[in-house]
Amino acid sequence: MANYDVIVVGSGVIGLSIAWQVGLTGRRVVIVDPHPGRGSSYAAAGMLAPVNEAAWGDEPLIELNVRSAAGWPSFARALETASDLPVGLRETGALLVAGDGSDHAQLEELFKFQQHLGLDSSWCTASTCRTLEPLLAPGVRGGILAPSDHQVDNRRVLAALGVAARRSGVQFLHASVLACLTSDGRISGVVMNDGELYGDLTIIAAGYASGAIAGLPDPPLAVRPVKGQILRLRTRDGRALLERTVRGLIGGQHVYIVPRADGGVVVGATSEEVGEDTSVTATACYELLRNAIHLLPAVGEIELVETLAALRPGSPDNAPLVGAASVAGLAYATGHYRNGVLLAPVTAEAIVALVEQGEIPDWASPFAPGRFANASTATSDPL
Amino acid sequence: MANYDVIVVGSGVIGLSIAWQVGLTGRRVVIVDPHPGRGSSYAAAGMLAPVNEAAWGDEPLIELNVRSAAGWPSFARALETASDLPVGLRETGALLVAGDGSDHAQLEELFKFQQHLGLDSSWCTASTCRTLEPLLAPGVRGGILAPSDHQVDNRRVLAALGVAARRSGVQFLHASVLACLTSDGRISGVVMNDGELYGDLTIIAAGYASGAIAGLPDPPLAVRPVKGQILRLRTRDGRALLERTVRGLIGGQHVYIVPRADGGVVVGATSEEVGEDTSVTATACYELLRNAIHLLPAVGEIELVETLAALRPGSPDNAPLVGAASVAGLAYATGHYRNGVLLAPVTAEAIVALVEQGEIPDWASPFAPGRFANASTATSDPL
Repeated sequence: MANYDVIVVGSGVIGLSIAWQVGLTGRRVVIVDPHPGRGSSYAAAGMLAPVNEAAWGDEPLIELNVRSAAGWPSFARALETASDLPVGLRETGALLVAGDGSDHAQLEELFKFQQHLGLDSSWCTASTCRTLEPLLAPGVRGGILAPSDHQVDNRRVLAALGVAARRSGVQFLHASVLACLTSDGRISGVVMNDGELYGDLTIIAAGYASGAIAGLPDPPLAVRPVKGQILRLRTRDGRALLERTVRGLIGGQHVYIVPRADGGVVVGATSEEVGEDTSVTATACYELLRNAIHLLPAVGEIELVETLAALRPGSPDNAPLVGAASVAGLAYATGHYRNGVLLAPVTAEAIVALVEQGEIPDWASPFAPGRFANASTATSDPL
Repeated sequence: MANYDVIVVGSGVIGLSIAWQVGLTGRRVVIVDPHPGRGSSYAAAGMLAPVNEAAWGDEPLIELNVRSAAGWPSFARALETASDLPVGLRETGALLVAGDGSDHAQLEELFKFQQHLGLDSSWCTASTCRTLEPLLAPGVRGGILAPSDHQVDNRRVLAALGVAARRSGVQFLHASVLACLTSDGRISGVVMNDGELYGDLTIIAAGYASGAIAGLPDPPLAVRPVKGQILRLRTRDGRALLERTVRGLIGGQHVYIVPRADGGVVVGATSEEVGEDTSVTATACYELLRNAIHLLPAVGEIELVETLAALRPGSPDNAPLVGAASVAGLAYATGHYRNGVLLAPVTAEAIVALVEQGEIPDWASPFAPGRFANASTATSDPL
């Protein structure tokens, strides 16, 4: 009864990357989403920043982030070749600066941690920071240069992935997946709002909404919505505002300013545990602008063109859930939290290994979905 | 050769009000605009605030504003009857409060000026202000209650005027007026991007763009663009945020918060002399939000739904230019600056008098367009 080899639920950057890469293996792939490419992947800033986003306690995730960042240049080249579309990879590094003395002390600790992990970063004095980015506010203290923290234009990536996936034979359905179908003790497909699909393997890549799909094996999927609000601005002359991404720790608050080559500027982002709320609030917009202008006064003079809120898929340990579920015929690729764009290459690589060899690679094993479920064990072969 | 009795150039709140009222006299009226109802009338907040916007030196304008505010309730009723659409007149008054000691001193001076002019206002202590509007920030000083400073929903007014004008027989053309036509020493119509129109009387009501029309008599029309940036927000429960409009003088900066009955909230506005620039800037959005949240912390928790910039038609004395031009067949109704919505009823009334009796009423004579032109005199009968 199977119509497809693989059903991918969710066409954000993760689902699309998987569909494209699995499509290239010659399998029959379908991807299902009611609002393709309009979730957190669309709202994102596109930073590929494993170094300056490194956080204590996240060591396994940092290792995965570094691996994926290293894979992005070749992933971007392959994607541009496959789609004939640019994805806006800018290999310019990123600068993280401190707003006050307390922020400075925190960044010194972060720098020590980066050095301890052997990450690619260097400490910069205030003077060096301003030499690197002359538009920085005069009051800015020193900071950390991460020469390998790059950026990609996430919306261009989504567009290119859509074309590449189609060209690799992936079929697209605009529909909501309501539930998984079970047959003979395995997942055999999905129920949509307007019909059913049958497939040997169903991959849940629906971001924060993954857990709302009925018929998933217990316990409930450990993914929750984490609201992010973000602004998009634009320079008046269409030239890049900065040489590189500038992040600031300003009075304990984080803000980032990502300069696109075409003059676009992304300022973000809040992180709010408020459930499924995607409203843009006055306070978030106000605080993002305040912190960005404090860090870089020139932001005040450019155009504000978009305010947006979206829901990231948060997980208990901030790391993704990638791999086979506790029931055959089902896998997960969700919970990427703030790192969906960054982790797209390694997530697709891990899922392709699962599809072709029956298990995820060793380097991906710390992110197996079963790690939050004492009672459940992942099957070794979902197919 | 005349096809129309009256050609109205510009379909903002002024042009539409004129077209509707002249249409009701039985004359053949056409109104021409490339983007109907999308200029400063659309961006406006809809305040009818002659008292709390009173300014030294503007005494003739204040008198006109008070006259028009008094006429708004009957104008609104007639418009709602004519269009079968609501216009959102809220007769709730307005409160103007001081943020600090210096602001407080300024408002005391303003209050004395209001009393000197016999305007309808009363002084409120900080405690009274908070009793009137419990959401006010704790630090707010005293202020001025203007019980007759009301509001109307400017976008509903535009929609209703469009219907009422059509029902009174007015024809609408979506076109740009490039120039006036002259024939036998009088204005005989207009040249549009796609043809010509002939009329006995041409009324220029094109806001800040009025002066760009070729063929107007010298000297150049004394109207310039004054950029205003404004925000629209919305409460989550769809209920009015406040009882009445709240204005603040906060560290010398003005901000207003206009609560619609349906939960809409308008926060404005900047006033910038930057030419024909309608970009929304980060700084304007930031400062409007900062001042509004400072005045009313609850603003921070509601949704930001729209950011917008538009160009008001400023004049040298902040008052409108209403009446016959220095050449027959031509009249002006422009330069209403911040008071276009407020002054729509009296402007239409004055122009109807001009059309029917050949001159504007005495009360409108201080606003005759010729007042900036020493060399020119208005004709007594433009028809």
